[in-house]
Amino acid sequence: VCVIPVSGDVSGPVSEGGEFALIRRITARLTGSPDVLLGPGDDAAVVAAADGRVVASTDLLVEGRHFRRDWSTAYDVGRKAAAANLADVVAMGARPTALLVGLAAPGDLPAEWVDGLADGLRDEASLVGASIVGGDLVASDTLTVAVTALGDLEGRAPITRSGAAPGDSLVVIGWPGRAAAGLAALETGRLDGRFVDAHRRPTPPYDLALTLARSGNLTAMIDVSDGLLADTGHLARASNVKAEIDAASIPLADGLADEPGALDLALTGGDDHCFVATTSGPVEGASVIGRVLALDPGESAGVTVIGHSPPTAGGHEHWRS
Amino acid sequence: VCVIPVSGDVSGPVSEGGEFALIRRITARLTGSPDVLLGPGDDAAVVAAADGRVVASTDLLVEGRHFRRDWSTAYDVGRKAAAANLADVVAMGARPTALLVGLAAPGDLPAEWVDGLADGLRDEASLVGASIVGGDLVASDTLTVAVTALGDLEGRAPITRSGAAPGDSLVVIGWPGRAAAGLAALETGRLDGRFVDAHRRPTPPYDLALTLARSGNLTAMIDVSDGLLADTGHLARASNVKAEIDAASIPLADGLADEPGALDLALTGGDDHCFVATTSGPVEGASVIGRVLALDPGESAGVTVIGHSPPTAGGHEHWRS
Repeated sequence: VCVIPVSGDVSGPVSEGGEFALIRRITARLTGSPDVLLGPGDDAAVVAAADGRVVASTDLLVEGRHFRRDWSTAYDVGRKAAAANLADVVAMGARPTALLVGLAAPGDLPAEWVDGLADGLRDEASLVGASIVGGDLVASDTLTVAVTALGDLEGRAPITRSGAAPGDSLVVIGWPGRAAAGLAALETGRLDGRFVDAHRRPTPPYDLALTLARSGNLTAMIDVSDGLLADTGHLARASNVKAEIDAASIPLADGLADEPGALDLALTGGDDHCFVATTSGPVEGASVIGRVLALDPGESAGVTVIGHSPPTAGGHEHWRS
Repeated sequence: VCVIPVSGDVSGPVSEGGEFALIRRITARLTGSPDVLLGPGDDAAVVAAADGRVVASTDLLVEGRHFRRDWSTAYDVGRKAAAANLADVVAMGARPTALLVGLAAPGDLPAEWVDGLADGLRDEASLVGASIVGGDLVASDTLTVAVTALGDLEGRAPITRSGAAPGDSLVVIGWPGRAAAGLAALETGRLDGRFVDAHRRPTPPYDLALTLARSGNLTAMIDVSDGLLADTGHLARASNVKAEIDAASIPLADGLADEPGALDLALTGGDDHCFVATTSGPVEGASVIGRVLALDPGESAGVTVIGHSPPTAGGHEHWRS
């Protein structure tokens, strides 16, 4: 890794030391990995793509929409920004290898905030052996974090949204609804609510999802970013099948059942970055929550819930109220 | 390529049809390429990385800092955003294969603006055979375009900033200063100035730079995004050498010499996305502008200009006035 050593201390707002000093300061906090053939410091990074393909996904986080500085630390935001992107790569059945990070920051942003962000990104990536290989730093009125994640399919076919077949089991990997419960607590001023950390710092079950992907039994998978209901719907429509969720089978994390509207939180909350998958075989560690059915003549692909009336506004969509 | 067909017309502001309709609308405008193994529409894209490595770079463009909607069309912004990233990949000696695009947009942004942006990104990428493989779309008060470019080294070693050696020639590929002249015209209200299009829509010399990279004669290369002087300085310091620029050898595009401060524009203007390179052999089509020298004992690596006193504030740095 091409790490440029920090030549002096930068403190105060990011605008004080200038862009290049801040880039040196951030770069010095990063670590490499065997996948990083050329790290930060040049026009572009070079990352290993051993099987001749690379998986790539990008996400933006905007202050006031995806995070609030009074609710989350910079470190939390870094963890969350990395998690959102790493989960997209894992949802394809790929091992994440690298992150690229663009930061648009107001001039009065404390340089320490950028340190925290970099540390959070680094530590979340390191959970799956990935590292930050490059980025960009620009001035903006709106604090925005743009992350791109790369990944390695290890010789396997990607697990798309469109591979679900009638007869498959529908499973969820992880615990949906915790981040939404945490957000609901924050929005009502309960800053010490039980699940606020699940909102601040989601914990996608990377290892379990990758283990199941490597087993070869998954036929389709999607990262739950818009909500269990909405994303199962995306998967069902991409596969042109009907997905049926048994409400009683949705796993609720310890204590979540005590929260008001727990099942609705689990069905519509997206920020946990669980995974919904379909499988034709055993999936140890995942929770079977339903099944995949063929469409009747004239029927539209989609998702239905058995045993619960889901809220009408299911899942998150930008510019929708 | 997995293109989701547009099921209906979306017009008016982006907020009207919602995020998913807008994504379908954009995706329908895109085209694929043999490098795209799985395009937009899933959690992540899959792109060919034939030689087992991938080159990756990311850049942000922020309204009011990198573009203005009253000076540039959406199509211009798309061309420019793509160019900035494609040039970074080419500066490593790699053939660009794919772009990922994040768009943070105010709810009142006309949906037609997003069409123009997508068309501009697509058309600039197609100049080098690359295509848009994925993206993200979020709401924000500040219009921001985040682009990540991927590239293929075609079996060669990357051309870094650090390979320049004493005795090499210093060359520029392209015509520096035109975008800065155009920006100066726009800033003084001359909207029909001779070089305004060079600011709106830079034309990096991708093909020539790649041809020279493939020749094997280049020892170092950098994309000129901060200015010829500043970026030659970056290259010289990364290579621990002294770079000497002959001011009289800097190529000035037709008509640029008539602009006030033409040489300063060429030395400090960055948005042309020319390339500065060093070479140990012939470089047909590039302009030799100087040479690489060894450091004298105690001397610092850097760049000097012969025959002209460059302005003290050389090149662009965010949060620097």
